[in-house]
Amino acid sequence: MGETLLPKRLALPVFCSDPLSSVAYATEETLLILALGGTMLLHLTWYIAAVIVALLLVVIASYRQTCYAYPNGGGAYVVSSENLGQTAALTAASALLVDYVLTVSVSVVAGVAAITSAAPPMAPYAVPLSVGFVVLLALMNLRGIKESGRAFAIPTYGFVLGIYVMFIAAAARLASGHTIRAESAHWPIHATGTYTGLALVLLAMRSFASGCTALTGVEAISNGVPAFTKPKSRNAATTLLIMGALSVSMFIGITILALVYHVHVAQSPTELGLPPAAAPPTALAQIAKASFGSVTPLFYYVQAFTAGILILAANTAFNGFPMLASILAQDGYLPRQLHNRGDRLVFSNGIVLLALAAIALIVIFDANVSAIIQLYIVGVFVSFTLSQTGMVRHWQRELETPSEAVEPARRRHIRRSQAINATGAFFTGVVLVIVLITKFTHGAWIVTIAMPLLFLAMKAVHRHYEKVREELQVPPGARPEPPSRNHAIVLVSKIHAPTLRAVGYARSIRPDSVEAVTSGIDAAETQSLSAAWDAHEMGVPLTVLDSPYREVTSPVLEYIRRLHRESPRDVITVIIPEYIVGRWWEQLLHNQSALRLKARLLFIPGVTVTSVPYVLRSARSTRAPSSPST
Amino acid sequence: MGETLLPKRLALPVFCSDPLSSVAYATEETLLILALGGTMLLHLTWYIAAVIVALLLVVIASYRQTCYAYPNGGGAYVVSSENLGQTAALTAASALLVDYVLTVSVSVVAGVAAITSAAPPMAPYAVPLSVGFVVLLALMNLRGIKESGRAFAIPTYGFVLGIYVMFIAAAARLASGHTIRAESAHWPIHATGTYTGLALVLLAMRSFASGCTALTGVEAISNGVPAFTKPKSRNAATTLLIMGALSVSMFIGITILALVYHVHVAQSPTELGLPPAAAPPTALAQIAKASFGSVTPLFYYVQAFTAGILILAANTAFNGFPMLASILAQDGYLPRQLHNRGDRLVFSNGIVLLALAAIALIVIFDANVSAIIQLYIVGVFVSFTLSQTGMVRHWQRELETPSEAVEPARRRHIRRSQAINATGAFFTGVVLVIVLITKFTHGAWIVTIAMPLLFLAMKAVHRHYEKVREELQVPPGARPEPPSRNHAIVLVSKIHAPTLRAVGYARSIRPDSVEAVTSGIDAAETQSLSAAWDAHEMGVPLTVLDSPYREVTSPVLEYIRRLHRESPRDVITVIIPEYIVGRWWEQLLHNQSALRLKARLLFIPGVTVTSVPYVLRSARSTRAPSSPST
Repeated sequence: MGETLLPKRLALPVFCSDPLSSVAYATEETLLILALGGTMLLHLTWYIAAVIVALLLVVIASYRQTCYAYPNGGGAYVVSSENLGQTAALTAASALLVDYVLTVSVSVVAGVAAITSAAPPMAPYAVPLSVGFVVLLALMNLRGIKESGRAFAIPTYGFVLGIYVMFIAAAARLASGHTIRAESAHWPIHATGTYTGLALVLLAMRSFASGCTALTGVEAISNGVPAFTKPKSRNAATTLLIMGALSVSMFIGITILALVYHVHVAQSPTELGLPPAAAPPTALAQIAKASFGSVTPLFYYVQAFTAGILILAANTAFNGFPMLASILAQDGYLPRQLHNRGDRLVFSNGIVLLALAAIALIVIFDANVSAIIQLYIVGVFVSFTLSQTGMVRHWQRELETPSEAVEPARRRHIRRSQAINATGAFFTGVVLVIVLITKFTHGAWIVTIAMPLLFLAMKAVHRHYEKVREELQVPPGARPEPPSRNHAIVLVSKIHAPTLRAVGYARSIRPDSVEAVTSGIDAAETQSLSAAWDAHEMGVPLTVLDSPYREVTSPVLEYIRRLHRESPRDVITVIIPEYIVGRWWEQLLHNQSALRLKARLLFIPGVTVTSVPYVLRSARSTRAPSSPST
Repeated sequence: MGETLLPKRLALPVFCSDPLSSVAYATEETLLILALGGTMLLHLTWYIAAVIVALLLVVIASYRQTCYAYPNGGGAYVVSSENLGQTAALTAASALLVDYVLTVSVSVVAGVAAITSAAPPMAPYAVPLSVGFVVLLALMNLRGIKESGRAFAIPTYGFVLGIYVMFIAAAARLASGHTIRAESAHWPIHATGTYTGLALVLLAMRSFASGCTALTGVEAISNGVPAFTKPKSRNAATTLLIMGALSVSMFIGITILALVYHVHVAQSPTELGLPPAAAPPTALAQIAKASFGSVTPLFYYVQAFTAGILILAANTAFNGFPMLASILAQDGYLPRQLHNRGDRLVFSNGIVLLALAAIALIVIFDANVSAIIQLYIVGVFVSFTLSQTGMVRHWQRELETPSEAVEPARRRHIRRSQAINATGAFFTGVVLVIVLITKFTHGAWIVTIAMPLLFLAMKAVHRHYEKVREELQVPPGARPEPPSRNHAIVLVSKIHAPTLRAVGYARSIRPDSVEAVTSGIDAAETQSLSAAWDAHEMGVPLTVLDSPYREVTSPVLEYIRRLHRESPRDVITVIIPEYIVGRWWEQLLHNQSALRLKARLLFIPGVTVTSVPYVLRSARSTRAPSSPST
């Protein structure tokens, strides 16, 4: 989005496809858990949905404070890093990285479920379809397609419009006295047991935890404040409010219709009395079909835009993940390849990493939304909690600022913001505990292992970079010191144009001594090489190394190690003739042993490696069109 | 096996695990096809088995001639190459490479089927088990385990012994008047249609083609003649005969018992009236179980040794494939990485390639022997036919030799050998046509696409190597010519120990001119670098390149290209300071942009790239323990 600033009506689709699209599955996930207790418990959905809506409002209120406090963008990593220190920041970063992967997996799989609900014959191909979408998104982002806000606007507003039209259609038909039933209303629901007392509470909590997926992606706006038109913070906060209103109304409406229509869902089709291979339509698809009755084009409209916004939501992770990885790399917590500042290859590594991880999850969990979603919510609430806690500290610091300039009105304002964030931190923290307790054995344990591993890996990378930086530092008075002597060695296997060029070059750098070296593998070959060497008047002596095991590289390495041991203060310049062919696959056919040798030579102290390339005609024409050939 | 020569009793297990083990599935594959015509057609097995045995004898007789004609080893590639020219040789090579892959897949999957037949609860894990065995074999071969002939002897002789003991047990029980029935005897067989006339002939031919898997691997001995004790050719020919006797007797015995016991097999368990997830035991397992009756330890013995010899058969491909790939690479038909003569890495690339291809087939075909085997026989008979045709030409040349020294007796002998090979060529050619016709739509088409693709790829590689070789040739009078001028450029990003060392080195090679170059990305950073540059008295001027897009590499490449255009006869020595860390994963964290830059610099004519490494302490201790640090 870079240069152009976004007005609210375009910022909403750019930043909110993730939270808005999550209403497509949140209700279904809530119902799914309650159904374990049989149809009797489904009425609990009312209460659970109410708590989720309340939580959503608290989180939105909290993030509005962040928009004001961090006009340059306040992602969980930045806020934690500034206010809570390295450990919290890295915890938030681990959570966010895991979340981006899960956003892609969950959104794409849910999008494909919307498609297969409208076109049931596609259901057996859910895994390849999902993988295909991830690959497509990765390729689009690798090519660096610049999405305009407009491209985001169509699926997002189209989805919202579709849902509202559905509500109106449903209201009209219900008002006219129709009884509407979802196609699944007559499917039986088999309770897995009777839930009373603590078991009932735990089941309700687990259902609530599943429904909390409606909250995913809420933080995106606070991250993107700089992209808004002025007044940035205010516009961002307002957009967050609009998003909240849309989310809440859609979630409530879908949940009401699911209950009114008696939508029945279950983990496995057999529990609904269907054959094991059946792929029942999603709850939202059932609601849309029932609401529109005979007006099927509208049903297909809702399904198409549901798939559209979900895949758009996955796309936001393809922006967010490489960006965060780049920031982490800049801070020294991830490999520098992820922070290629300004280069054309920007973010490519991050995009590929994200796509591979998401594909792995899709394949492992067989493109099953309900299975993958178990992993999703832990990371989301870890970053929520850390971000809100960080905000509480942020306001505290503002209050404790030594300057007398904090007016009482401002002071009250800060107190109020702090209270809002504290409320947010408390409730998201409570939800995190609930999620951990109720989801741990259902898959969340994977995330609770993955996050600490990521955390430790980032710490290790950082320690490594620090160690190297310290070791490479030079004292202020240090001067470059030329080596005492330079001994040049040209590696030779046969006499051809690159060899001649390399020998010519070796003589031109005027080393203190120079020789050519070859591994003697075949006596006849060596003899003919020696003869040719003299015939071509190479002007430097040729040393033939013994190679009892017919190896090329080991004798050379051994010889150079010995030279270094004998005069450790000298530099040994190893000159390697190479020839450069045009295409990458051709390059694979050559120089592989030279490459291996170079990699190992660099580890011998005092050795300098010089490649003297001989560029073949084919390479000149394909790769260096601007350079005249010599 | 290298140094030690093998007596016949050890050569047999070393070279014959593949052909001997194939009797474990050949009968089953024959029955499987005939069963499509219902139980009525199963009696055709008698005739088909008889034809297969006759064919096996013809092929063995043919290969005995090869043993005498090629005492240095006469694989299909060598024989075709010497007698039929490049196209035939590459066709044979393509067939052989494909065959090795299929030998691994088929043998391992059949071995796992032997295991799951004895331990049915393992059946759902056939794919991971098979992949696991391939990985294990690959790792063992990568570590370069030297198998002794003795290690081969136990599973091979153990298998043969087990089969014969099974025959004796069966004969004893049948002779005493028992009626023995396999467990599958009462399973129904559903004919897919009524086969009469041409359809019946085609079905019989397809069944015959499946049974021909009993012939796979017969050529291994002719390939390995040099490993035999003297008289090599004669011992090899005798071993071939023994192998033939064992193969034929086991195949006949197993086929008889399969018919006597009414073994019923089918492509899918449902056709046998079993649930779809059932994994019925292999035909051989059923025969063993029925033969031994209550003596179950003997049943487990047969299953264990069947699995053992099959996995050993897969192992032979792990020797053969890298060997053939190395020969092809030496002849310039495959990338040179596959021919690392004498290096410790010998064959590693070939082993990894083979394992990956075999694993892909196992996963794609869901570890189903009957599915993979459809691909197997085409390649086998292509190489048989070419090899035998080559032998006919070989003898013809001997007859046409201008010397008068060919005595009449020798002449008659050659004529006789030629006649045997011509018979072999004719019949294997006919079988090849039958296999192509009957198996094409059942999977053989994959091989008929893969082989020509391999063929074309090898041609392309060869053409490329030839073109490069010609372009690199130098005329006899050529002399090394030092460049007219050498302009040195040190690439700098910051001032640390490697930079100092690189500048010192640049001055020591006494170039005609020298400068340091950096990409100016951040104005403040650039200014502080310039200041430090003066403070450290670097002694060479620092050029700051404009980088409007905040890129590191492009401005450098552009600058060097311009220098080359301005004085195309000069050499530009680009000196890159690098630092070398200890472990491979640490290395991944560094020098990536240097690596990318080096790769692109090499394509600019006239550029020479010099890496000046600074070896960090950690790297010195882990990699170069023998070198004292400077």
